Order: sequence, then structure tokens, then C-alpha cells
Amino acid sequence: MDRTLLRAEFPVLTDVAYLNAGTCGPLPRAAGAAAVGLLHQAEQHGRSADHFGVLIAAQDGRRRRLADLVGAARPEDVALTTATTDGIVHVLQGLEWARGDEIVVAEHEHPGLLGPLAALIRQHGVHVRTAPLERIVEAVGPETKLVACSHVRWTDGQVAPAALAELRGRVPVLLDGAQGLGAVPVDVQALGCAFYAGPGQKWLCGPIGTGMLWIDPAWQDRVAARGPAYLNLEAPAEGLDARPWPDARAHDAIATSAEITTSANAAFDVLAEEGWDSLMAGAADLAEALVRRLEAAGRTVAPRGRTTLVAWSDPEPAATRDRLAAAGVVVRDLPGTDLLRASVGAWNDEGDLERLVAALA
Amino acid sequence: MDRTLLRAEFPVLTDVAYLNAGTCGPLPRAAGAAAVGLLHQAEQHGRSADHFGVLIAAQDGRRRRLADLVGAARPEDVALTTATTDGIVHVLQGLEWARGDEIVVAEHEHPGLLGPLAALIRQHGVHVRTAPLERIVEAVGPETKLVACSHVRWTDGQVAPAALAELRGRVPVLLDGAQGLGAVPVDVQALGCAFYAGPGQKWLCGPIGTGMLWIDPAWQDRVAARGPAYLNLEAPAEGLDARPWPDARAHDAIATSAEITTSANAAFDVLAEEGWDSLMAGAADLAEALVRRLEAAGRTVAPRGRTTLVAWSDPEPAATRDRLAAAGVVVRDLPGTDLLRASVGAWNDEGDLERLVAALA
Repeated sequence: MDRTLLRAEFPVLTDVAYLNAGTCGPLPRAAGAAAVGLLHQAEQHGRSADHFGVLIAAQDGRRRRLADLVGAARPEDVALTTATTDGIVHVLQGLEWARGDEIVVAEHEHPGLLGPLAALIRQHGVHVRTAPLERIVEAVGPETKLVACSHVRWTDGQVAPAALAELRGRVPVLLDGAQGLGAVPVDVQALGCAFYAGPGQKWLCGPIGTGMLWIDPAWQDRVAARGPAYLNLEAPAEGLDARPWPDARAHDAIATSAEITTSANAAFDVLAEEGWDSLMAGAADLAEALVRRLEAAGRTVAPRGRTTLVAWSDPEPAATRDRLAAAGVVVRDLPGTDLLRASVGAWNDEGDLERLVAALA
Repeated sequence: MDRTLLRAEFPVLTDVAYLNAGTCGPLPRAAGAAAVGLLHQAEQHGRSADHFGVLIAAQDGRRRRLADLVGAARPEDVALTTATTDGIVHVLQGLEWARGDEIVVAEHEHPGLLGPLAALIRQHGVHVRTAPLERIVEAVGPETKLVACSHVRWTDGQVAPAALAELRGRVPVLLDGAQGLGAVPVDVQALGCAFYAGPGQKWLCGPIGTGMLWIDPAWQDRVAARGPAYLNLEAPAEGLDARPWPDARAHDAIATSAEITTSANAAFDVLAEEGWDSLMAGAADLAEALVRRLEAAGRTVAPRGRTTLVAWSDPEPAATRDRLAAAGVVVRDLPGTDLLRASVGAWNDEGDLERLVAALA
């Protein structure tokens, strides 16, 4: 991987030590250019049958790319959602629930998982039990109908235990891949989960409004499509008799623009060109280098896995975040904690890390 | 209204007789430019706290614009959805249902309404009864829990009867405004509906992926948010105790990009500048002029209301559509019928109509 060439694809990196892919990745020039091209085409030629042909081809291409990335058996096992939470909602709302059903969830999960779970408690009276991420498998009991947790935890970069795979065939696992997809290797077969939801705008560097949900084929007929729109239906003209696709396409977002999807594909291709293994290893190594730098500077780094997130304690996280931003270093604070968090991608370099540590001092 | 100036905003109109706003409106130059500006900003400066500030301001502005357009009492009564069907799904899935509950729906509705209704039949065993649009009020009985129909019917431009307003306080009415919003005057108070769902990409000329749902404040606490994500929650940090906003914001789309929303606002402003009353009257007059031209050419126009849709019989609608497209005239066919449909906006002129009728001959 030639890091200088890769960095040149991302205009923000010229001036900014951009270390916040965990919110949104840097947007590559190619992603903007693809969107601009589509917008121009739509302005000039309108948006009728031809435009929808472009849209559908872009969606097919997106599904293939994402299926490859996560090791899906078929593109049709991947739904094109608007966001990680969108996929989570499709799973939680699509499954059947009875009062008292138990869901085991890990500690410190993101509101994007907890908000939809809270809705399920109100709607069906399910019981949500919280366990430490590292001991979540032991927390599963005979009443447990679902396990839901981060693949990579947003607060500190801890990784879900590999032992979750042992639950396959016993209890379905929903992984929130908001900080996993594109950041660390994702192999849905090896993870043994039933559902993997991830974002397009973070480690895949695409536009906001793009995400994915992989559904294990064994679970597809147990996740009902609650609101299938035109493109989710196998034969829309059949009216009240129309049925959703018998695969993950039933859960595609109701409407996504061709410019957004084409832009997301262009961003994906910039990264895929480098090779995902190399990108992910490079990012994880950089994150470890950042840990060493922070510890050498006397900072207390939160325990973490081999991921792309690094969080450390700070007496005034919001104020420090603003001070760093003014110095051209972008990280985020985590409201309700004393943590600042840097998100490292293969597009970053030692110079970015150095700027962060220098600005912190 | 200076039609020449208005037409100059829409590049597609230079070469094409674009008569298909009922699929997607023409995209004004300003909408593309706004998106390009935002993309450039995101590329250069990243997408962190400042970017989300821009996104939220754009959403606030969108909510105000849409609230004004439909006569909502408060911006917070409007949810920013991805599409008309998205809003329909939020209503259908958010209401409580019991087996055997009856929903009255009009004949010839769009798959975007029928698909989600079919899901509700499978999920809850509700009973859907179909009635002619013009007699839908008479079809309401003691078991009816909801009436759902087009405001303007997609196949022929018929308008829902004003008598629907008499149902207020008795049975909630969900209007599918896919061919209404921005095309004909929409006053949610006068319509007497409980829910009005509409699109952003048709008569509002914005990007695909933008829509709205107005919820009558009297109904807001009866439509549960099934999947509230971060921005739908009043206090996201409260985790499992977090509750959705007590208004339509609970139903906002989970993720929409700043470029899409800003672009939609720019398109809206191009139109608002002309004045909605004038635009809508101009479009309706043009549609009537088209009816006269088609009838003079011996075509049989389907009965319609004072709307912006004109449908007429054709022996081979799909082939004729393609032939017209090759001649630079864009209309659509309606699969499963013998109809071709033209959608007329105030951005069209007599020249466009003339081209259509000439190309048909």
C-alpha cells in the first residue's frame, strides 16, 4: 500500500489531522465526483426510466461489493439500508416477540441500538438484560431469544468475544457493526451471527444515508418486512397480494438516490483498490502506534481490542475536543464519559498521530 | 410568474419536453449546486460536529418549509422521511392493531400504499376493504379503524372527495400525497386528515430520498416510533430509558445526508420564490390545456380532477412511451393499464404540450 497515494484521494487530509472516521470517514474526491456526475446527468436528462436503470445498477453493484466485504454467500443476503440503526430496526421489528421474551445486550451500547430496544420493550414487553461485553455468552439463558451487541464497541474499541459464534443454532446474535464494517475484518460466517448491521459513511467513507444489513439465509423468513415499498416487492403490480422478496432485498431502504449510492460505490472502490486486508492491518497498526504515543505522553488509554478506535481519559473532553479542532486535529468526545476518542484509518499516518499528541500537550 | 425565467432554472427543459414530475420532478440547477457545495465542504473539512450542525440546520429549515406548505400548526408536526411510502409505513406500523380491525382503502391505489397494507394483513390479520375513491366515505362502517387513500390518484389524477373531512374525530384518514404535495393546494386542516404523507422528489423537485409525513397533533401519541435512532430521541444518552420526541420528529428518517437535505431546500426555494398559488394554478391550467389538445387529437382522456396529471388510453403504452422518449418527450406508462400519463408542472409550457401531441401523432 502506498500511503501517500491513498492520502491524496482524501482532500481533508491535506490540512487536517482527521481522526474521526468513527463518526464519518473522510470523503474521497472520487465520491464527490461521482455524485456530481450523477446530479449533472439528472439535471440535464431528467429522472425517468433511464435514471432508475442507473439507480438499480448502482444498487446491484453496492450489494455485490458489500456481500464480498463481509463474506456473504449471495448479494441478496445484504439489504441496502440508510444506516446501521436502520438495519437494527428491521431485525428487531421483523422478528416475532411475546411478552417476557428476553434479549441479552452488552453494557455501554450505543443509543442507535438502545433506542430501538427501548421501543421494543414498550411495544411488546420484552425483557432486556444487560451483561458485560466480554461475558455476554455466559449471560445467555433458556429464556434468551436474541443477543444484541457491538461487534466493536463505540466507546473504547473492545471487540465482541469470538465465543458468540458458539450460540449459532441456539440463539440468534445481532451484531451492531457501526465501528466494525470496513474497520476490522468482518466474516459473517466465522462470526456466527444471524444479523450484521453496518454503516456506509464511516470506514467505507461514503455519504451519510448508506448502510447495510446482512441476514443469515436461515433467518430470512423469520424477519418479516413491515413496510415493503415498490422495490422491496417481488411483483408490485399484484397490489394487496404482492409479497416482499424472499431475501434481504425486502429490507432495502425505501428510497435512496442514485447519486448517494453511486458516490458510496466510488468511495468503496478507492479503498478496495488498496486491498482490504492491507488497509485494515495498516489502520490497526496505526491505532496501536497511537496508544504507545498517548501512553508515553502520560495518558490513560481505555482497554481495547485490535481495532481502529483509541479512547483515553481527559479531565474536560468537550473543551479539549474543541481545542484540538482549533489546532486542526479532529477527534470526538463521548458524552456522559470522561473519554476522548480517536478513530484511525489507513489513510492516516504517523504525522497525524504526532499532531494529535502535540496538540494535546 | 415569469415562465421563461422559471424554465431557465431547469436544465432538462432546454432540450426535453419533460412531462414526468409524477415520477421525479425536473431537478433545478440550484439543487445540484447546493449538493455540490456541501459535498465540496465535506471533502475539504470532514464531517464532524460542524457538519452535523449544518445537517441539523438544514433539517430544521426543511421542516419549516414543509410545515408552511401544508398548513401545519408547528414545524414539529412534520416528520422528514425518505419517501411517501416511508411515512405511510410509520403510520401503519405505529398504530395499534387487533385481528379483524378494518381499513378502508380506495381502488387503484399505488403499490407504495398497498405493499405496507399487505404487510399489516400478514402481521395483524387486519381486514382491508376496497371502495371506489369517490364513494370512500360511504364505505366507512362501525368496524373501520382507518381510511387510507390517495389525495390525488396516481393513475388518472382523480382527487379524494372533500367529504373525507367529515370523518375527523370519528375515523382517522391517511392521505397518500405522492401526487398531491407541491402539485395541488394541500391544507391539512381543511382536508381533515390525521396523516398526510408526501414526496420531496416529485412536485418539490428535490433529490430522491426526501419526503414528509404530517401527523395531526391529536394523533401523535397514538403513533408509536418503532425504531427511534439517535436524532429521534429526546435524550439519547439515557439509553434504555430514552424516549422519542413527543411529536413527528420521532418519525424522521434515521439518516439523511446534509447534501440531500440542503439540495431539497434549494429546489423548494426556487419554487417558493414563484409563489405556490401561482405555480399550482399555472400547472393545473396547463394540464387542462393538455386535455383539450389530446381530445382535439382524438385521444380518450381518463376522467380526472383539477390536478397536474393527465392520463389517456393508448393501444401500446410502453412502446409509445419509448417512441416519445426518442423524440425528446418524457411521459410514463402505467403497467397493468392501457394508459400513458403526462405530469404537468408550472415549469412546462404550451411548447412542451405541442411537442407531446405532435410526437403522439
